[in-house]
Amino acid sequence: MIESPPLRLPVAVDVMGGDHAPAAVVAGAMQAYLDGLPVVLVGDAERVRALLRGSDLPPVVHAPYAVSMGDPATSVKRHDDASVRRAAQLVAKGSASSVVSFGNSGAALVASVLELGVLEGVSRPGIALTVPRADGGSLVLIDAGASVDCRPDHLLTWALLGEAYAHVLGVDAPRVGLLSNGAEAGKGPRVVKEAFPLLTEACGLFVGNVEPEAALGGACDVLVCDGFSGNVFLKTAEGLVSLLGERVRRGVRSSWRARLGAWLLRPVFDELRAELDWRSRGGALLLGVPAPVVVGHGRADARAVRAAIGLAHYASQRRLIDRVTEALVAGAARVDAASVRGEHG
Amino acid sequence: MIESPPLRLPVAVDVMGGDHAPAAVVAGAMQAYLDGLPVVLVGDAERVRALLRGSDLPPVVHAPYAVSMGDPATSVKRHDDASVRRAAQLVAKGSASSVVSFGNSGAALVASVLELGVLEGVSRPGIALTVPRADGGSLVLIDAGASVDCRPDHLLTWALLGEAYAHVLGVDAPRVGLLSNGAEAGKGPRVVKEAFPLLTEACGLFVGNVEPEAALGGACDVLVCDGFSGNVFLKTAEGLVSLLGERVRRGVRSSWRARLGAWLLRPVFDELRAELDWRSRGGALLLGVPAPVVVGHGRADARAVRAAIGLAHYASQRRLIDRVTEALVAGAARVDAASVRGEHG
Repeated sequence: MIESPPLRLPVAVDVMGGDHAPAAVVAGAMQAYLDGLPVVLVGDAERVRALLRGSDLPPVVHAPYAVSMGDPATSVKRHDDASVRRAAQLVAKGSASSVVSFGNSGAALVASVLELGVLEGVSRPGIALTVPRADGGSLVLIDAGASVDCRPDHLLTWALLGEAYAHVLGVDAPRVGLLSNGAEAGKGPRVVKEAFPLLTEACGLFVGNVEPEAALGGACDVLVCDGFSGNVFLKTAEGLVSLLGERVRRGVRSSWRARLGAWLLRPVFDELRAELDWRSRGGALLLGVPAPVVVGHGRADARAVRAAIGLAHYASQRRLIDRVTEALVAGAARVDAASVRGEHG
Repeated sequence: MIESPPLRLPVAVDVMGGDHAPAAVVAGAMQAYLDGLPVVLVGDAERVRALLRGSDLPPVVHAPYAVSMGDPATSVKRHDDASVRRAAQLVAKGSASSVVSFGNSGAALVASVLELGVLEGVSRPGIALTVPRADGGSLVLIDAGASVDCRPDHLLTWALLGEAYAHVLGVDAPRVGLLSNGAEAGKGPRVVKEAFPLLTEACGLFVGNVEPEAALGGACDVLVCDGFSGNVFLKTAEGLVSLLGERVRRGVRSSWRARLGAWLLRPVFDELRAELDWRSRGGALLLGVPAPVVVGHGRADARAVRAAIGLAHYASQRRLIDRVTEALVAGAARVDAASVRGEHG
């Protein structure tokens, strides 16, 4: 069957969320627009228009309400005119392909579930992103922080979503690991222990508990985490990159020998920075909802906003969600077959 | 009052725990002994003696039982001849100053509590260690993995222990932070939310929720974590150091320019490695028990074992536990005074 290419629907960009919103988000969206990507800006129309310059401008959809940071989940539930909900509404009614938000990730989760629903069999959507590994491969980490209190069945859903995503990214038989504080079975807090048998049964290739260092070293292709420790993992990794960068810079300033060395090593450092800098990665994908939702970094600058919009557009053009759904159905069928054979507990 | 110097009691080294036990542990303990540190080796006497060479040898206490990795806590409870319990028994009866173990940290916790008890007011001991910060300071992280399922009152105890430890390490007014996935109050899983008001009241200087990157950047002197995410923090940091080291090595091999640069930068890299390598730090301290208990890294080699014994001996000579106890009493007095003034909820 030949599929028709997806329509070039615009990416709905919530310009009200993020530490540097709306200015940095509008600037990044404008860059994407000038690069030829279709976008629609969702936010306080007056403030947005004041930030736009030029004659060829992207459309703006008015949504004056910015989600409160005090209790973002409740705030987004109460306000259907919250910018991130308006963005999801555009997708729901077929006027946009995808959502990009740099606001609270829990708010993006709630808005997406309210306006778009969830894929069949998904107990809770999870935020997935890819992290470079020492062996040159790529690690899909899910959940990266949408759900900080979670249940074993959430971890199961994320395992299947992560497996499906890794498959879409080109890994034939993704090895799925469960983040824990030791490689032995039985390690970890209660939720991890209870999720272990569920993942054993459901995943095509479950490699058991995996520690962060082993995961970064290449022990698995998908790392399933409760949202809290997944977030700690990511932010610690970012912090270490900053710390080491700072220490090397300080060391380099200490002598002429070191300065010359750093100049010679500059191409190596530049390549490393490009690979590890979250600003170039664009953001994370909320998986488990029926359209691409990109959750960008709260500290996103215009460059990171441009990258996040690129990711959302790429995901919709490549039918990423359809392919995740297919892989998810295949995974669910495997679980069903296992239960029929009586393999589960 | 002039205090008499502590007796030079030996460090009781559990030689049966750790990935490379007993060989690496015996080798490291022998190095410490030849460096003049008093040690007593606790383990399977026959196996230990087979590993010792020379005429001047440290004493060996027979404890044949190595804690099972399947269920270490139960295993150590059931076997009072487990090597880590025998080591703690030597301290309890005044024959040793301190314990060093490279086995399971939960087993070290249980053995210490069973044989030594806990300090007054401590709901559960916590594992503390210091992590270098980007600003050149040092971060006390507690708990690093002894308790993976924990309660808000455990986090409170660790906050007070961490504060006391930072004080002993020379920080006058330690800033205490609570590990979370955002800096705002109200962020984090239930246990973190419930601990927040307790820490607000009890700590001398509570700076609220702190994200990993901010903690590594210098936002606090003490980072209070549930054991699971504290362990994820540490292991992710270790993993990132390995990953970046591997990437730089690979980049360096790619060209002569980079090779020369790396040679010139070698002093900077060496200094960084010395600072960040856990092998030189020796291990973590189990705080909240009435004697120094050093929990070394499971992967410890002889050099790391030597460093861990050095830390235990230093802690006992410097009366570290007495000083932590004093600081803890002062902290508890502050909490009591606050309750008398009716400041708590």
